[in-house]
Amino acid sequence: MKTSIATVSISGELPDKLAAIAAAGFDGVEIFENDFLAFDGSPADVGKMVRDHGLEITLFQPFRDFEGMPEPHRARTFDRAERKFDIMQQLGTDLLLVCSNISPISLGGVDRAAADFHELGERAGKRGLKVGYEALAWGRHISDHRDAWEIVRRADHPNIGLILDSFHTLSRKIDINSIRSIPKEKIFIVQLADAPLIDMDLLYWSRHFRNMPGEGDLPVAEFTRAIAETGYDGYFSLEIFNDQFRGGNANAIAVDGYRSLIYLGDQVRRSPGAGSLTVAPMPERAEIKEIGFIEFAAADEEAAELIATLKTLGFRKTTTHRSKQVDLYRQGDIRVLVNTDEGGFAGASYAVHGSSAYAVALVVDDAKRALERAVALNAEPFSQPVAPGEVEMPAIRGVGGGLVYLLDDKTDLGRIWDIDFVPVTEDSGVESAGLRRVDHIAQTMPYEEMLTWVLFYTSIFEAGKTPIVDIIDPAGVVRSQVVENVSGALRITLNGAENRRTLAGHFIAETFGSGVQHLAFDTDDIFATAAALRRNGFRALHISPNYYDDVEARFGLDPELTERLRAENILYDRDEHGEFFQLYSPTYGEGFFFEIVERRGYRGYGAANAIFRIAALKKHLRPEGLPKIIG
Amino acid sequence: MKTSIATVSISGELPDKLAAIAAAGFDGVEIFENDFLAFDGSPADVGKMVRDHGLEITLFQPFRDFEGMPEPHRARTFDRAERKFDIMQQLGTDLLLVCSNISPISLGGVDRAAADFHELGERAGKRGLKVGYEALAWGRHISDHRDAWEIVRRADHPNIGLILDSFHTLSRKIDINSIRSIPKEKIFIVQLADAPLIDMDLLYWSRHFRNMPGEGDLPVAEFTRAIAETGYDGYFSLEIFNDQFRGGNANAIAVDGYRSLIYLGDQVRRSPGAGSLTVAPMPERAEIKEIGFIEFAAADEEAAELIATLKTLGFRKTTTHRSKQVDLYRQGDIRVLVNTDEGGFAGASYAVHGSSAYAVALVVDDAKRALERAVALNAEPFSQPVAPGEVEMPAIRGVGGGLVYLLDDKTDLGRIWDIDFVPVTEDSGVESAGLRRVDHIAQTMPYEEMLTWVLFYTSIFEAGKTPIVDIIDPAGVVRSQVVENVSGALRITLNGAENRRTLAGHFIAETFGSGVQHLAFDTDDIFATAAALRRNGFRALHISPNYYDDVEARFGLDPELTERLRAENILYDRDEHGEFFQLYSPTYGEGFFFEIVERRGYRGYGAANAIFRIAALKKHLRPEGLPKIIG
Repeated sequence: MKTSIATVSISGELPDKLAAIAAAGFDGVEIFENDFLAFDGSPADVGKMVRDHGLEITLFQPFRDFEGMPEPHRARTFDRAERKFDIMQQLGTDLLLVCSNISPISLGGVDRAAADFHELGERAGKRGLKVGYEALAWGRHISDHRDAWEIVRRADHPNIGLILDSFHTLSRKIDINSIRSIPKEKIFIVQLADAPLIDMDLLYWSRHFRNMPGEGDLPVAEFTRAIAETGYDGYFSLEIFNDQFRGGNANAIAVDGYRSLIYLGDQVRRSPGAGSLTVAPMPERAEIKEIGFIEFAAADEEAAELIATLKTLGFRKTTTHRSKQVDLYRQGDIRVLVNTDEGGFAGASYAVHGSSAYAVALVVDDAKRALERAVALNAEPFSQPVAPGEVEMPAIRGVGGGLVYLLDDKTDLGRIWDIDFVPVTEDSGVESAGLRRVDHIAQTMPYEEMLTWVLFYTSIFEAGKTPIVDIIDPAGVVRSQVVENVSGALRITLNGAENRRTLAGHFIAETFGSGVQHLAFDTDDIFATAAALRRNGFRALHISPNYYDDVEARFGLDPELTERLRAENILYDRDEHGEFFQLYSPTYGEGFFFEIVERRGYRGYGAANAIFRIAALKKHLRPEGLPKIIG
Repeated sequence: MKTSIATVSISGELPDKLAAIAAAGFDGVEIFENDFLAFDGSPADVGKMVRDHGLEITLFQPFRDFEGMPEPHRARTFDRAERKFDIMQQLGTDLLLVCSNISPISLGGVDRAAADFHELGERAGKRGLKVGYEALAWGRHISDHRDAWEIVRRADHPNIGLILDSFHTLSRKIDINSIRSIPKEKIFIVQLADAPLIDMDLLYWSRHFRNMPGEGDLPVAEFTRAIAETGYDGYFSLEIFNDQFRGGNANAIAVDGYRSLIYLGDQVRRSPGAGSLTVAPMPERAEIKEIGFIEFAAADEEAAELIATLKTLGFRKTTTHRSKQVDLYRQGDIRVLVNTDEGGFAGASYAVHGSSAYAVALVVDDAKRALERAVALNAEPFSQPVAPGEVEMPAIRGVGGGLVYLLDDKTDLGRIWDIDFVPVTEDSGVESAGLRRVDHIAQTMPYEEMLTWVLFYTSIFEAGKTPIVDIIDPAGVVRSQVVENVSGALRITLNGAENRRTLAGHFIAETFGSGVQHLAFDTDDIFATAAALRRNGFRALHISPNYYDDVEARFGLDPELTERLRAENILYDRDEHGEFFQLYSPTYGEGFFFEIVERRGYRGYGAANAIFRIAALKKHLRPEGLPKIIG
């Protein structure tokens, strides 16, 4: 699979863009005209700079408002094309992208357009250049790739071909099967972009909301599969217009883009009939069976506070590490490690980010293969020295500052507890609260990085994503999206914060690192758990009584149940699958907290309750100096 | 005009919201249920808090999915309503907003809905409460206020009335004339919101893009006029869902909201037939005749650099202030004051913001009336002591940290130059560059504050606004909107920056204050000006040669003209009215610069050239440490 990306897709000036694109691993780059025009160097300089980066220029674009122009505009348009051909020859690229005409003075007619393209093909051919025609979804006369293809067919010129763009085809819901009848040699290049499904004006949607394949909701893999079945083996090139990407980190966006293409190629490679699309084989997406452990790096009073909180939650210290200052606290299938060692990654993480849940271990079907896939998708492998005889755990760096360990039970990795740890007997003085397993892990990040996290998880692991929902914090909107697998073993809620006065924004401004802001544990009986927690001295987050009046009216609850909810500060929700109960801790430090949930068939995450628990959680931040909203 | 705003319109927790709403001058507040539910106090507490602020609760909302429910849902819906009535009585409000049903299980039928409302009216009436019905633009069966009105009419109950909302009516382009036949006593309240014209899903548009009347593109004044003609004299209440407002400064947003209502009332008051809408009369919007002067506060080397630059631009010092260190530099009708006085507002501004064009004087038809109007619209008047015999200039504070002086020629204000200033004779050693007048003033602000500036200028002065256009900076998108009057005497380009790595974002992060980032001067002959500037030692901003090849091809320019443009680094644009020429200085300090333009009928601002001049301008910032985009 030959990979390319348009310079317009990422932020920066042309040299910065090219450096980021080359570093991310792309083979080629589309030179977007404005990036070239703003650059203070000749076309030949740009061409050299591109080739010095080991990149090929896949095309020069866009050439607008070409076909169907009445005279005298028509003649001028051809002159204009000749000037672009001059530049292309100096740049060192042979393909010009012509997008369908949007000019109000342009004339319709397939034959007229075909004749124009035939003549353009003649002119291009004399210079050894080619022209590809792309149907813009909002083109004046041509807005469907099937019509563009008919024009290319009638132009009947070897130097004239078709350019397909997933956004233009999929945004108009054009049958992608129509691609399968196009001869591969007439497809000059394929552009790819995804987008979230929001019903709006196509041009506005395209200009502001495009994102990388796999980050949105369009069936880009289906589209690519249809392309591959034609036998097409040319470039797949990303052309993404996105306000966040324009203002984002060029390197990070380029890495995302490359990952999205590799992941797409991998999906398509597995399809029957897609033989022409060659991608380095990699293991399938890893299936996550459970959360192996969550490890905190902490020190001093913060470690003491964390351990005290874990105890009130009913956790007991069961084992301790042979050679490091790491203790395992356990309850049900939940394992929480508290690492107070000053050395290693944990110590370094603590030094930079303060106390945090810096590492999450995922138990997968095959850790070695999971690591292999992650690395094939450009995730960064991680290892650190272990004492002789101790288990080396495969790991990758997460998107933020955290670690993701990959464990399985096929190798001795599953036996880490037996080898590296020794049992302790300690009377914690608390009773179990009946917590069974990790329900979900909530990670917070700046909103503009949320798509990076989504792509990271869903490309490496067998998991899907839910639509983005808006969570209302009193100080602003937080976007929330869930990555989850079918079994429910993996459930990660991602919260993209737009300003630092929100609870989420405050947390990342102050600590960030792994981004783990809260952990939700599952119980089979929230009321029994609440009672046990109370006896352990746990103080639940206080919820406004007004909430309970509404919940009772809204769901038609038995007043007795409402009373129990209110007494224990338990939040309630319901969907078509069942009921949901949530109990929160106050916040610790800069906004970390625990949640306890009981699911009676319910599949969501209590988004409707978020505004109430956030308002309550923020009260605990105030004294520590959360910036006031007013003023 | 009785003013109200829904708590959902601004950021913060309930007490913060109420404080901001009361401080801004509103008479009433809609309690949005979630704000109430998240608040840890009883309904009576909330009611008291509202009344302690001198506010009235105009309504409680929203009550969803009421009408047309099949049993057993119907009975539960009535129970739910009774619970809300309980809360309303404790809150101390008599109006409940019911929005049209969106539930998939709801049944249609005007008579069924009318019967439901009749019964609800009976129940409300027993408690002395009222219910208003609002057609959501995306309601399942009812999405048009005319249908909602038919249901209210058939419900035929004194406690059931209609709620009109400008967004729901105008977003669906429903004929507003249909409002004029509704009896005023059946309109229980009127909600107002504006929005930019973007074609998208109505719910998505409503939830994210609403803004204050006058900030968007909907004909809210026409809508309000129709309401006023019914004789309606109740509350006009803002209900604005906007992501920026949710994350913004509550006080500033509330002030904007109040200003938008007063301005709206003033517009409507002037219409024949709108007698019922009483608003304190204020002078009409001030007509701006010219830019009187622009005043810089500067000191030391920065002042010297500014003066040296003004001289290379062909300005000459013509007069100096009698009692302050203020010199007037003049060319054509352009007056630039350089204030190096340590005292007064200029000195204070310099101390806080560094060198900047901190004040702009607008020459209006009647300065006293302009000031009166500005104050009526809650602008803050400004004055500082002047020496005996000197002219006191009326002024208001701008939205940022700057000042706006209001001058006219009816009073002695026009004679300021004769009274406060004395002529100097100084050989500047430079020749005039033929600059005639101020073409436009460019102000930069954080994007989320741009609407505040638009409303400030357009409500006080006779001016319109253009649609927002996206300006592409290599480091991100900058939104640009122009406030201008018909004569062209007032032209202000507002640039809303979203991140500080853009040229605009860098400027406001480092200096802000008045936000004046560049001044554009007008010439009748850009080539003559360019030649004179060269002779004066002015160095124009270097533009990439690539730009000129494209401009020649794009506009079909005579190669000789292109060569002259290229030689002088002049940018070119054209619209249906004529040609445009632009010449830039490099940036000074943190990103301030000058522009020189020649308009040959052209009406725009060269937005298509922005990407090229921004890339060039940023090169001059680099050495001073603009954060790198990459990394």
